[in-house]
Amino acid sequence: MISIAYLGPRGTYSEQAAICYGQGLQSQDVTYQAYPSIPSTIQATAQTETDLSIVPVENSIGGSVDNTLDTLWTLDSLQIKQALVLPIEHVLFSRAIAIQDIQVVYSHPQALAQCQQWLTHNLSTAKLIPTSSTTEALAQIGQETKAAAIASSLAASLYQVPILARAIADHRENCTKFWVLSRQPAIRGSHTSLGFSLPENTPGALLKPLQLFATQNINMSRIESRPTKRTLGDYHFFVDIEASLDDPNTQAALQLLTNCTETLKVFGSYTELAIDFNVDV
Amino acid sequence: MISIAYLGPRGTYSEQAAICYGQGLQSQDVTYQAYPSIPSTIQATAQTETDLSIVPVENSIGGSVDNTLDTLWTLDSLQIKQALVLPIEHVLFSRAIAIQDIQVVYSHPQALAQCQQWLTHNLSTAKLIPTSSTTEALAQIGQETKAAAIASSLAASLYQVPILARAIADHRENCTKFWVLSRQPAIRGSHTSLGFSLPENTPGALLKPLQLFATQNINMSRIESRPTKRTLGDYHFFVDIEASLDDPNTQAALQLLTNCTETLKVFGSYTELAIDFNVDV
Repeated sequence: MISIAYLGPRGTYSEQAAICYGQGLQSQDVTYQAYPSIPSTIQATAQTETDLSIVPVENSIGGSVDNTLDTLWTLDSLQIKQALVLPIEHVLFSRAIAIQDIQVVYSHPQALAQCQQWLTHNLSTAKLIPTSSTTEALAQIGQETKAAAIASSLAASLYQVPILARAIADHRENCTKFWVLSRQPAIRGSHTSLGFSLPENTPGALLKPLQLFATQNINMSRIESRPTKRTLGDYHFFVDIEASLDDPNTQAALQLLTNCTETLKVFGSYTELAIDFNVDV
Repeated sequence: MISIAYLGPRGTYSEQAAICYGQGLQSQDVTYQAYPSIPSTIQATAQTETDLSIVPVENSIGGSVDNTLDTLWTLDSLQIKQALVLPIEHVLFSRAIAIQDIQVVYSHPQALAQCQQWLTHNLSTAKLIPTSSTTEALAQIGQETKAAAIASSLAASLYQVPILARAIADHRENCTKFWVLSRQPAIRGSHTSLGFSLPENTPGALLKPLQLFATQNINMSRIESRPTKRTLGDYHFFVDIEASLDDPNTQAALQLLTNCTETLKVFGSYTELAIDFNVDV
């Protein structure tokens, strides 16, 4: 039996990602457990409550999910087993008869941000209220007839609220990348993720690690800076490279990287899987 | 008369920053106007409703304020006139008699994230509910005796709710950087901010611009990647350099930068001012 922790509550995109991944684990008994926050979802696997944790790491519009990177940085026990890319469709749910009757819109801040143009155009006077998840937004509207929620189409099966508009995101291509985390070593795959801090506080020192990847012919597909939380202007960096840990070039680069970084954390090598189907719950 | 747009409502850290800046503009008549979102605050100056806009850009714990970078990227009319660094003190407001009676805590998601350890330790069973601002959190608790809000000490003068705990942020040094935006050119100052996208979709191309600053002996103090919103894995970059636009080295670097970037936007040169006092409203 395999247990998977995901960022709850039920009906969120994270649950959709977890179910997609679980269905791929053929002939295994899979259980799903919702957790209330990204840190608690990740900790579930670190503390052996579950076998795997599935958390969002990046959205094509909203960008990096800071909480995931910050939590992973504090742990040394988890590796990335797989990346999943899930298409996101934002749907407007409401008991209002017409869109213009809506006075309040609830949703997760990222979903509100991703539908900003549509909301400005269609609901310019509505008050936007952030909630802790997209399904929490659906719970908030209750029986109200002047409120709406933006959530995933998956949530429609859990809450009996009519759909007033579909595909309301400002950008047509909207997808979220999730990481499947486990306690097992992950040394083989087309993508490798690293985190490092630099010995000097001057971020000019960032040039060295990047040159080092270039010298080894390794392409960097992503770089994120996050505050070290020590002082304003002090960062550590999260880098994705297109190379596998079992490749000699990668091993050479990592060896040299230890000389020009303060702390170096390797989060594993993994493959990326694009999911292009809807899941029935 | 000078009019300043800030991210409202009243009692937020943004208002505190605006007032600090306004008080420095001696012998001038200054008016303050609260706006409901970061994009609308920035647009106020772009559309000549106000002379200046003051918006948060980075917090020492939460990191970059994505909405500010994303909105600035879409405009070509605004320059950074000044950076302000404001110390942040998170305060727990509640009508509860004791901390352990609190069942719900309202605050802005960044404030909740910044007090995560304190909340886990002292209010592990309380439900955390995000609000659109720290003062909105205070408005939410109303007359409830089992609810609390995390907000700035400034907000205490606006809402008559007792303070139950002070300085509850997990990290002692907590400050936020704000940018003062105007329509005037800003060409002189110790800091310069730039944004650029790269011609190739492979972020390996990022190495060239960074090498270029190094060659001109220019230190880069910050780099942020933000999604272009076209496709997952496609970014543009925001860079702060420690150099002035009227310095020949900077001009040489910018000239070469146009050859290795797709779009290059210069947001101006400015000085950074640390504010270390409290403001009476």
